[in-house]
Amino acid sequence: MAVEVVYRSSRDPERLFMDKAEADRYDKMLELAESLGEVLHKAVPSLSEQQVEDIGIFMAKHRDTFARAFKNQPDALAELELPAAD
Amino acid sequence: MAVEVVYRSSRDPERLFMDKAEADRYDKMLELAESLGEVLHKAVPSLSEQQVEDIGIFMAKHRDTFARAFKNQPDALAELELPAAD
Repeated sequence: MAVEVVYRSSRDPERLFMDKAEADRYDKMLELAESLGEVLHKAVPSLSEQQVEDIGIFMAKHRDTFARAFKNQPDALAELELPAAD
Repeated sequence: MAVEVVYRSSRDPERLFMDKAEADRYDKMLELAESLGEVLHKAVPSLSEQQVEDIGIFMAKHRDTFARAFKNQPDALAELELPAAD
């Protein structure tokens, strides 16, 4: 047995990481997701808390793709792998 | 009376522009909004058509701000002027 260092984001204390850089990336993703969620909830008040959280996390996880789409490549969105809609 | 040239986006034929560049910008905004809407509807199926459209148009209208937020400045979102949430 030994004491070991683990890392976590204060935004989601349940999830532990062995790697600090990975915990940092996760924290940054959650930070962006939260900011997006707040903005979208104000812009479209009919969204539920759950919807706002789902949208924020989805977009934050694919932030590079969305960054390109918003910059000048809307086609970048076609790269996202998504379940087929009916 | 005289014949004059007006411009419109095929995505929204009701809206006419006297300026071609302005019509182009509007068309590009709607294109991005549609792409965003499709992606978000697949990612979060509980969203209604109206919600998806509202989110897409809101984000596309502020594409520069969102581009910065997704790139590396989540704080950029604080600049958006939004109605206060309750």
